[in-house]
Amino acid sequence: MKLRHILSTQQFLDDHVLAEIFQLATEVEKKDRENNLSPVLKGKMLATIFYEPSTRTRFSFESAMQKLGGSVISTENAHNFSSAMKGESLQDTIRTVCQYADVIILRHSEEGSSEIAARFSAVPVINAGDGTGEHPTQALLDLYTIWKKFGKIASLNIAFVGDLLYGRTIHSLVYLLSLYKGIRIYFISPRQLRIPEKYKTFLNQRGVQFEERRDLGDLRDIDILYVTRTQKERFSTELEYENVKNSYIITRDILQGMKENAIIMHPLPRVTEIEENVDDDKRAVYFEQVKNGLYIRMALLQMMLT
Amino acid sequence: MKLRHILSTQQFLDDHVLAEIFQLATEVEKKDRENNLSPVLKGKMLATIFYEPSTRTRFSFESAMQKLGGSVISTENAHNFSSAMKGESLQDTIRTVCQYADVIILRHSEEGSSEIAARFSAVPVINAGDGTGEHPTQALLDLYTIWKKFGKIASLNIAFVGDLLYGRTIHSLVYLLSLYKGIRIYFISPRQLRIPEKYKTFLNQRGVQFEERRDLGDLRDIDILYVTRTQKERFSTELEYENVKNSYIITRDILQGMKENAIIMHPLPRVTEIEENVDDDKRAVYFEQVKNGLYIRMALLQMMLT
Amino acid sequence: MKLRHILSTQQFLDDHVLAEIFQLATEVEKKDRENNLSPVLKGKMLATIFYEPSTRTRFSFESAMQKLGGSVISTENAHNFSSAMKGESLQDTIRTVCQYADVIILRHSEEGSSEIAARFSAVPVINAGDGTGEHPTQALLDLYTIWKKFGKIASLNIAFVGDLLYGRTIHSLVYLLSLYKGIRIYFISPRQLRIPEKYKTFLNQRGVQFEERRDLGDLRDIDILYVTRTQKERFSTELEYENVKNSYIITRDILQGMKENAIIMHPLPRVTEIEENVDDDKRAVYFEQVKNGLYIRMALLQMMLT
Repeated sequence: MKLRHILSTQQFLDDHVLAEIFQLATEVEKKDRENNLSPVLKGKMLATIFYEPSTRTRFSFESAMQKLGGSVISTENAHNFSSAMKGESLQDTIRTVCQYADVIILRHSEEGSSEIAARFSAVPVINAGDGTGEHPTQALLDLYTIWKKFGKIASLNIAFVGDLLYGRTIHSLVYLLSLYKGIRIYFISPRQLRIPEKYKTFLNQRGVQFEERRDLGDLRDIDILYVTRTQKERFSTELEYENVKNSYIITRDILQGMKENAIIMHPLPRVTEIEENVDDDKRAVYFEQVKNGLYIRMALLQMMLT
Repeated sequence: MKLRHILSTQQFLDDHVLAEIFQLATEVEKKDRENNLSPVLKGKMLATIFYEPSTRTRFSFESAMQKLGGSVISTENAHNFSSAMKGESLQDTIRTVCQYADVIILRHSEEGSSEIAARFSAVPVINAGDGTGEHPTQALLDLYTIWKKFGKIASLNIAFVGDLLYGRTIHSLVYLLSLYKGIRIYFISPRQLRIPEKYKTFLNQRGVQFEERRDLGDLRDIDILYVTRTQKERFSTELEYENVKNSYIITRDILQGMKENAIIMHPLPRVTEIEENVDDDKRAVYFEQVKNGLYIRMALLQMMLT
Repeated sequence: MKLRHILSTQQFLDDHVLAEIFQLATEVEKKDRENNLSPVLKGKMLATIFYEPSTRTRFSFESAMQKLGGSVISTENAHNFSSAMKGESLQDTIRTVCQYADVIILRHSEEGSSEIAARFSAVPVINAGDGTGEHPTQALLDLYTIWKKFGKIASLNIAFVGDLLYGRTIHSLVYLLSLYKGIRIYFISPRQLRIPEKYKTFLNQRGVQFEERRDLGDLRDIDILYVTRTQKERFSTELEYENVKNSYIITRDILQGMKENAIIMHPLPRVTEIEENVDDDKRAVYFEQVKNGLYIRMALLQMMLT
C-alpha cells in the first residue's frame, strides 16, 4: 500500500494500513537493534519546514530519514523563506521546496495548513503538527506503543488527562481509537479544557463508549493513563490555574491505585504533571514512546518513498 | 576547466565556461530524472555561512551537495561565530571554516564580502548574495532557464521589471547577457529604482542595445519578462509605493498581450507582483527556475570539487 | 581503551589515554590528507544540543562525524525542546535525544550540566563547554597542538594571558599540563581575572611550578604564549577595561622578544588581542589549532563509537 500524504489520522480509518505500518515499524526496529538497517532511502531527500520550532519532532524525522540512508535539508525558521515585509505564501514555499526534496515535513501554527501544502506539493507532505489541529504521526506512535505493550488495542480503557481542548495529539489519537472494539475512553479535564464537541459527536457516531469528568478519580480500571501538559495561559486567573494544575499531578501514590500492567503515557515535553520519581516505575513508558516514534517514522518514510 | 571561486558573473565573460556549465547541468538533470546520480562528491564537505537567512538558496546548495554524495555543515546564524560584544572578523571566520570544509557558500549583507572571503579562504568560495552586489549562481540558473526554453540566448528581447537599483540577481544577469549577439534589454522601473549607471556604461561598452522606461507598456516583442519584487521601504511615501506597486502587477490580461512562447521569470519570493492565476499559464517558469538552480549548483559544485 | 563520556579533562589524568588519542588523531589526519578515510562511523548518529550557539565548535564536531561516515542531527536552539512557559528539564531533553542518537554533544550555560546529562543519557555525552566550567575537547586539541609542535610536552614554559578567571579552555588545559614533568606555568592577568584558587591548589598538590603576574613582562623563556580574549563586561569602569585590554595586545614587536620556535595559541574567536599582522608569523598557530580540533574530535568519536 502506498501512502501519498499524511495529514490527519482520519485517513487511517482503515485498519489494514495501520497493521502494515506497525508490522514495518516492528521489522525496522528489529533491524536497528541488530545494526542491520538497509539504506533503502539512499538518494532521497527529506525537507523539514518548521514555522514553529520543535526540536523533538524535527530530530525524530531527521534521524529516521538518515538511518535509512536518506539525506536531510532542515529549517526551524521557515519564516525565513520570505525575508520581505510581506511574506511569501505557504503555497509558494511548498512549490519551491518540492523542487529540492522527495518528502516535506511541515510544522505550522495554523490548522489546515498541511492540507494547503499537500494541494500544492509535487511530493508527499507529512503534517508534523498544525496549530491545535492534528499531529498524526504522534498518534500513530502512541497507538503503536499501546499495541506493543498490550499485544492488542481492543477492549482497553484509556484515560486522557489535562488539556483536551488544545491537545492535538489527543485529537489525532481519538480518531484512531475509534477503530477498535470495546474501547472505553475517559476524558479528564478542567471545565475550560474539555474535549471539543466534534470529537464527542464522532465517537457517538462510531459507537465508542466515553465519559467526561473533572477529577482524576478512581483509576483502578484504567489500562492507559495518557497525561498532557496544562498550559497556564489558558486560565483567566493564576489561582484557577494552580488549582487545576495540582489536581492532575501524577505521583507514585496515584500509581499505587492503578493496575500492575497499566501504562502511563505522555507526548512530552513533561513539566510538573508527572513527578520525576514516577519515571522509574516500569509503567512509565514516555521515553519508549520517543523511540517508537523513530521506528514509526522510519516505517512511514519507507512506505511513502519506496 | 576548473573554477576556483564564484564571486561575480563578470568572471564568466568567457562563453566557453558557460557552455561547459550548461552541458554538465543538463547531464546532471538527466541522471537525476533517471535516479542514476553518482556520488562524485563523496567525502567532500560544504559549509553554508549565511549572515542573512535565506532558506531557499541554502536548501538549493545543501540539496545539490548531498545529491552528489557530499556532506553539509550549515548555519543561517553566522553571527554566532562571534558571541562576544565585538565580533570576530569575516576573515577569521573564513579561515576557521575552511579548516572544516571543501567549499564555502557565503551570504552576507555587505557588497564585496565574498571577495574578502575568497582572499582568506584555503578552499573555494561561492557568493550566494552579497548585499546589493551580486548573486552569480542565481544569474547562471536564470540564463540556463532561458537557454533551455529557447535553445539559444542570442537575439532575444528581455524586459526587467521592478526594483532594478537593488536587485542583485538582475545585476548579475546583465553581465551575462552582454555575451550574446542581438540581445535587446528593456529596463522597466520607477524613477527611484532605475538600473545603476555602471551597468548602462557596461552595456554601452559591449554594444548591447537597451532602453529604460517607466511603464510596462507594449510587451508584444518581449521574449522574457523578468519580474522582481518592489520593496516598500525604498519609497518616501506610502502613496508613491502603492502607485508603483500596482502599475507593475502581472495579470492574465497582460499575458494576453504577449507572445505565445514568451516566458515569465521571477527570482522569488513573489509577493503580489505576479497574480497567482498567472502560475497556471505555461509561460510562467518561476518554479522551473528553482529546479534549474538545483542542477546548476550541482554542476558548479562538481566542476569546483572534482 | 573505550571512553564512555568526556566531561572534564580531569578524567584524562592518566597519560596512556592521551597517548592513544594523539596517536589516533595522527592516523586520522594522515588518512584525511591522503583522501583515504574509512566510513567507520557509518550508521551512527551524532546529536548536537547547543543551549548557547557556537558555530565553531558545532561545525567541528559535525564535520568530524560526517568525515567518518556518520550522520548528524543538529540544533543551536536547544531551548526549543521546551516550547512551554516553564521549560522541560535538561534530563528529560537528554533522555529524549538519546533515543535518536549514538552520541550527544552538549553546550550549556551552566557549570556541571554535562554531568547531569551523562547521568541520564543512555549514550555517550561530550561536554562542549558548560558555562565557566570546562571545555575538555578544546584542551585536548590545544595539548595535541603543543605535542605536534614540540614533539613533547615535558619541560615547556607556558604563559596564559588574559581572562584566566572565566576562561574555561584554560581551566581544562591546566589539568592536562599537570601530567608532564618540568612544566612551568605563568598566569598573566589583570587583578580581577586571576586564575581561581582551586587550580592553584591543584597545581601545588601535583608539584607543578607556576607564578602569577599582571604584566606581560619578559617572554624570552616562553615556549607557548596562550592568549585569550578579555571581556569588557568583567570590569567596573570603561577606563579600567581599556587599560587592561591594551596592555595585553600581542604585536609583532612583542614577538621579536620571543624564541624563534615559540608558538602563539588562541582558542578563538580573536578580537583585538592579537594584531592581524601577527598571523603571518610562523609562530602563530591558532588556525592550525582549528584543524587539529577536527582530528582530535574524529579520534574521540571513533574511540567512543567503535
